[in-house]
Amino acid sequence: MSEHASICIGIDLGGTNIAAGAVTAGGRIVARNKIKTKAELGEKVVLERVAKAARSLLDDEAVKSEKVVGMGVGAPGPVDIHTGVLATAVNLGWGRVPLADRLSAALKLPVIADNDVNVGTWGEFKAGAGKGQRDMMGIFVGTGIGAALVLDGRLFHGAAMSAGEIGHTVIASDAGVGRRTLENLASRTAIVNRLTALIQSNRPSLLTELTEGNLAKIRSRILAQAWEKKDPLTVEVLSEAAHHIGIAIANAVTLLSLPCVVIGGGLAEALDDRWHDLVQASFDDVVFPPERRTCKIRPSRLGDDAGIIGAALLAHQHLAVEKAAPAGLAQAAS
Amino acid sequence: MSEHASICIGIDLGGTNIAAGAVTAGGRIVARNKIKTKAELGEKVVLERVAKAARSLLDDEAVKSEKVVGMGVGAPGPVDIHTGVLATAVNLGWGRVPLADRLSAALKLPVIADNDVNVGTWGEFKAGAGKGQRDMMGIFVGTGIGAALVLDGRLFHGAAMSAGEIGHTVIASDAGVGRRTLENLASRTAIVNRLTALIQSNRPSLLTELTEGNLAKIRSRILAQAWEKKDPLTVEVLSEAAHHIGIAIANAVTLLSLPCVVIGGGLAEALDDRWHDLVQASFDDVVFPPERRTCKIRPSRLGDDAGIIGAALLAHQHLAVEKAAPAGLAQAAS
Repeated sequence: MSEHASICIGIDLGGTNIAAGAVTAGGRIVARNKIKTKAELGEKVVLERVAKAARSLLDDEAVKSEKVVGMGVGAPGPVDIHTGVLATAVNLGWGRVPLADRLSAALKLPVIADNDVNVGTWGEFKAGAGKGQRDMMGIFVGTGIGAALVLDGRLFHGAAMSAGEIGHTVIASDAGVGRRTLENLASRTAIVNRLTALIQSNRPSLLTELTEGNLAKIRSRILAQAWEKKDPLTVEVLSEAAHHIGIAIANAVTLLSLPCVVIGGGLAEALDDRWHDLVQASFDDVVFPPERRTCKIRPSRLGDDAGIIGAALLAHQHLAVEKAAPAGLAQAAS
Repeated sequence: MSEHASICIGIDLGGTNIAAGAVTAGGRIVARNKIKTKAELGEKVVLERVAKAARSLLDDEAVKSEKVVGMGVGAPGPVDIHTGVLATAVNLGWGRVPLADRLSAALKLPVIADNDVNVGTWGEFKAGAGKGQRDMMGIFVGTGIGAALVLDGRLFHGAAMSAGEIGHTVIASDAGVGRRTLENLASRTAIVNRLTALIQSNRPSLLTELTEGNLAKIRSRILAQAWEKKDPLTVEVLSEAAHHIGIAIANAVTLLSLPCVVIGGGLAEALDDRWHDLVQASFDDVVFPPERRTCKIRPSRLGDDAGIIGAALLAHQHLAVEKAAPAGLAQAAS
């Protein structure tokens, strides 16, 4: 069986976009497609749009539709991987949605669903910066901070299926309630709030000019511009964030003796090596010393594609296991 | 095959004592024995004393020696579980020692060796407070603070085999270098240092009387006495320690979505429910909210026996796996 013998579709379902890809078992994208989510139109319409994005790939010249054997979906919220039910998705304004069953019925394909951070981490593990490792943590720094764990070659979900919530770990126990956790110290949201407060208290910053005075316009790209131009206030706040991210990663590596950590997400991907070196330096400073030699923090290699590749490779993986012992994936009604 | 059909010997090798037990596959101790380690006499003598402790069990009336099938050893340092080599043991003044091979040759028994914290956690998981769980962390608070993880029903060692070093995680990043990590904030060593400094700076404390003015005599039992009598200084320092321990446990549970944490060790076992309730309250305050409902912190059930029971049950487990696929345990030369 060649690498191309079967294809799975991977869906990265986000608050803004639905990204879809047709992916080989080796992690190669043979066709892709991206449409707006239009979350404001509600759950039914969004699910139709996901199915539409998938169907357009089935119709794609580059994809022999008879070779498409399944689909994986990464969703922005907690997912019960056994039932494929999404518990809630704040970004989408959704409550409980039986995501895998709905999409499986619409597309007549087996569908597996998992949380988007788990799916992106799986992509990096199987086909990106974590390839060849046995254990790995993926950490994604954006509006929030999430992580996922691959242990002994498998995604580790934990008892309540919420493993990886590194953003909620406390690294500054003596700080006030709003400044104790990693997410409150180093997410893009926290960084922008802090910069805005400092600028409003009359600290000068290039950000005022870059946003034409409207600080609500600060995004990762603008932060990266101010960082590259060495705006002192931006350097100060982003350096603090790197320091805290390095500590949180070190804590996870110290606890789990991890050989590999991959860092991605909008903010981390927008920033240059100088910033990543600060994360590494903070990590090296506090990690349990023997791990300093064995664990390396690597930038994500798949970037925005981690979600669709990871979702598709999860489906490939589950279908391979299914063959041996059928159970687990939502099956199309026959 | 009845539960008594086979017995393994479990050894808890500590800096002060060698505790040995003959243990059924169900975790019941049928004979036990404890001798001084005499670490000052060096590695060769200590290993002979371990073998002597084991042999006295083989000779015990309660143990039919022909039923003894293997031995497990918990050692106070990092152990390569595949080779049974102890890398170093500060308490014993040892460098690298091929522990499993040496003891296997001396006793003509298959021997498995692991770190003492891993072994104690395995005991609690199989036969103590973690029985029936799938995932668990054991945390032991004494002169240092160590932990071990059972994930998906197996001890998780990690890439460098040092998983569980929770004492080295940072929870107060803004504090000075000597006050950032859990061990520097909440081990018995840290607690005694802090109390001694405060008393020497003229804070009154019942500890002065309990130790007859010699603060070097503070041990867990004396701390527990001062705590029970509500000595304000002791209450202040032990409450802070409980606060920090609760945070570190919460971080692990938030990261791993653990359903169960067992707390033991000399200090934790000496202190009463009032102290354990403070740990739980701190945990509840900061853990990722969904885990608050699912994860309970339980006091250790096996106490001092966790090491010998865990070591013996590890040997039972490995021998059962061996039967299916031989590999891994040090075998006596035949």
